[in-house]
Amino acid sequence: MRRPRLAMSQATVKHLSLREAAEVCVRHGIGAIGIWRETLGDVRTDARMLRDLGLRVSSLTRSGQFVTTTAQEHAAMIDDSRRAIEEAAILGAECLTVLGSGCVQLASGEATAQMADGLAEIYHDAEQAGVVLGVEAGHPMRADQTVLTTLESVADLLDQLPPSAALGALVDIYNTWWDPLLAQKIERLRGRIVGVQIADWLAPMPPFQPCRGFLGDGTIAFRPILDAIDATGYTGSIEVEIFNQEIWALPADDIARRVVEGFALAG
Amino acid sequence: MRRPRLAMSQATVKHLSLREAAEVCVRHGIGAIGIWRETLGDVRTDARMLRDLGLRVSSLTRSGQFVTTTAQEHAAMIDDSRRAIEEAAILGAECLTVLGSGCVQLASGEATAQMADGLAEIYHDAEQAGVVLGVEAGHPMRADQTVLTTLESVADLLDQLPPSAALGALVDIYNTWWDPLLAQKIERLRGRIVGVQIADWLAPMPPFQPCRGFLGDGTIAFRPILDAIDATGYTGSIEVEIFNQEIWALPADDIARRVVEGFALAG
Repeated sequence: MRRPRLAMSQATVKHLSLREAAEVCVRHGIGAIGIWRETLGDVRTDARMLRDLGLRVSSLTRSGQFVTTTAQEHAAMIDDSRRAIEEAAILGAECLTVLGSGCVQLASGEATAQMADGLAEIYHDAEQAGVVLGVEAGHPMRADQTVLTTLESVADLLDQLPPSAALGALVDIYNTWWDPLLAQKIERLRGRIVGVQIADWLAPMPPFQPCRGFLGDGTIAFRPILDAIDATGYTGSIEVEIFNQEIWALPADDIARRVVEGFALAG
Repeated sequence: MRRPRLAMSQATVKHLSLREAAEVCVRHGIGAIGIWRETLGDVRTDARMLRDLGLRVSSLTRSGQFVTTTAQEHAAMIDDSRRAIEEAAILGAECLTVLGSGCVQLASGEATAQMADGLAEIYHDAEQAGVVLGVEAGHPMRADQTVLTTLESVADLLDQLPPSAALGALVDIYNTWWDPLLAQKIERLRGRIVGVQIADWLAPMPPFQPCRGFLGDGTIAFRPILDAIDATGYTGSIEVEIFNQEIWALPADDIARRVVEGFALAG
């Protein structure tokens, strides 16, 4: 029943151009694509190409990295985020992803404060452009790269900001499934979930990174998690986003077929 | 100032016998050793050997795995846990480690309930033997193997059990450092922390598992975490426990030297 909401991140078919990835989606009846900014050419041309193919854009990755150490870096990050907002608006992306940055500091919370300040600086631009920022928690094994490692840290951050239709949470199930209190943390985001990404957790953990898996090849029980997310009122895309060098090496149509089959079981 | 509390898990010098590992500790002025049960011979003989060397036992790993699927497995697990309690008593171990088991199920919490039931069944034996059970959270990247992936899940579990001097939490800093709310979660364990294990998080993540690092080689800011732990009233051992095939391949005295040096910086 969730089939019409299936999307595929182009990162799942990493070695294709945006056009090739979009055409794979169309061939396999996948209605939306998640786009990485570095693959964009002229944004208006790309947006037209996607529209002509009848493809929606589930997400655009990503805004600037909000934790910076110099005023110059900060200014560059704000500029970059504003460009990302413009691109997301042109593409009609369902959300623009915001990843945490900075390293966890137990006492200071300085990185989190910087993220809040950065979001406060740009969310009006997003509002005016009709773009929604989706703040995402990284997996705790990426804690050296992001200060946001749980959905509660995302909710805490959003609670520091004024309520705005341009500010929400992107729930990446691969990054957050392990939390024994996940259902409560999802419920706390009621009305604020603006995107969902999904991949399976392979076990035992492969000896290479990144090692996300096709849905059904790993250990995550997706249905109760997706039910909990939908129960908060979320009705948008569910984007399969698989980082895995062994999967990237497969023919793109085989990847897309496995994405669709896995989603039929999990979704 | 924490130097007298330094302990080393024998897992850090994995390829040595218990006696060899104990002698390395003594040579490097490490006052206590963490023991894995599978390396024990006759427990009374081993206990005498350690006493003669003047070494304390910071922890014994581990009790039975509490999540089982048959009555037979359950009975075997209770038996095994009772044997572990006897061994911990003979060794005078500061705690007997209890690892979570079972896979995270969002809705059911059945695995957690089984852990609570199992602990309820054995903690009287531990009380009588003067042994403390230290319940440990695993890293979220081990969520396919344990239902306990955060200190809050450990505290929630302990809260389900009667207060007892035989029930506490073992804080493994490598497994829990990534939590933005770590300080609060440690504070919630006030008076209930019965052991601390420590290793550094290497970044970028090496392409092999397990890949824990010497203190100072990674990204964890240990001092505020140790300060938060001590602020709860914990005064026991701080056990360096490093799983890493590249480190295991080094000469044991080099490993012990790096353990001591790293602790001097971090502790």
